Amino acid sequence: MPARPAIQPAISSPFQSPESREALRIEKRDALLRAAVGMFNERGFHATSLDDVAASLGVTKPVIYNYLGNKDQVLFECVRMGLSQLRGAAERSQQVGGSGLDRLKAFLRLYAEVTMDDFGRCVIRTPDEVLSPGARTQFRALKTEIDATMREMIEEAVADGSAAVKDVRLTAFTLAGALNWPARWFRPEGPMSAQQVAHDIVELLCSGLSPNR
Amino acid sequence: MPARPAIQPAISSPFQSPESREALRIEKRDALLRAAVGMFNERGFHATSLDDVAASLGVTKPVIYNYLGNKDQVLFECVRMGLSQLRGAAERSQQVGGSGLDRLKAFLRLYAEVTMDDFGRCVIRTPDEVLSPGARTQFRALKTEIDATMREMIEEAVADGSAAVKDVRLTAFTLAGALNWPARWFRPEGPMSAQQVAHDIVELLCSGLSPNR
Repeated sequence: MPARPAIQPAISSPFQSPESREALRIEKRDALLRAAVGMFNERGFHATSLDDVAASLGVTKPVIYNYLGNKDQVLFECVRMGLSQLRGAAERSQQVGGSGLDRLKAFLRLYAEVTMDDFGRCVIRTPDEVLSPGARTQFRALKTEIDATMREMIEEAVADGSAAVKDVRLTAFTLAGALNWPARWFRPEGPMSAQQVAHDIVELLCSGLSPNR
Repeated sequence: MPARPAIQPAISSPFQSPESREALRIEKRDALLRAAVGMFNERGFHATSLDDVAASLGVTKPVIYNYLGNKDQVLFECVRMGLSQLRGAAERSQQVGGSGLDRLKAFLRLYAEVTMDDFGRCVIRTPDEVLSPGARTQFRALKTEIDATMREMIEEAVADGSAAVKDVRLTAFTLAGALNWPARWFRPEGPMSAQQVAHDIVELLCSGLSPNR
């Protein structure tokens, strides 16, 4: 009896492979999250309805529940994404050569770029009290982690003599404050790119206003 | 017929004079406004009820309506007070002698002190979209006015050579961003006074991080 040939999938099966189903699921989830973060940033959390988010992609609210959960969960997922990008910025800047100040400046530039982008902007524009109590605790813990990283990088720059500061904590708060502000006013369609804004702000913060520098 | 003596008010009349009635009205209005701004800052606008504000002073909501209007109006009055204090800071710093940078630094310190106080803090913590449309327009116009004042003072410092900046607009945004941040984290019961925080932030912003300054 001749061996039966192995079953070959049709070249253009109307059924998706598990891999492409999973890829499509991720793509849909990502599209929903981007639509939500855009509306949260534009209108504010309270004025955003998941019905409108869903409608902007031609679906209905239960689709969002299925992919992301309720409105509180969607918001938390948005800020979690932003904080994860800020952590990524810290990791990338650790790879930069040169002095401690060079690494700190690289981090500050990347940090500013993230906060001008959708998810980072949502981190800055979301007051703690808008999140549900459990999410709020996690949100604060993640922000504290970013703050601790910034302090460490300032300390390293001070330790190798490339920077001098009076108070590391207040310096970290001041740098973060200045870098968080573009999340309120920056518009991608404006005259400067996010990269230019980030670069110029970091130069200003590191060099000050004095003409004798 | 002898002239009748002029009527003398009793020394301790149980009836108030018009002046003291007006003074008491202002005092009550001020107490309501301070109670409201404290709760807005602490809990956020949406989570604050005028019932709670009224109860904190042992009165009921109609008393607030009578003195200040509805919740939207109360919030607008709070931010209007804060913006008026910021304008006052600009006027006081115009009186400072010395260079343009000296005047700018005086303004920045006073600006920071206002934003660490109740009404200034409310200006910073209130997103535009929380205000009703009419109030929002006025809020933005008043903030733009403060921003224009800061730009003028930077320009004056550049003009007399006491400061050097690449981009006046971005410098104003960066300084404001750094100075607005304490509205989010400063606590009067913390280790530093508002005056100290304001002083140290302004020194940092004007001098930068470089050890060679």
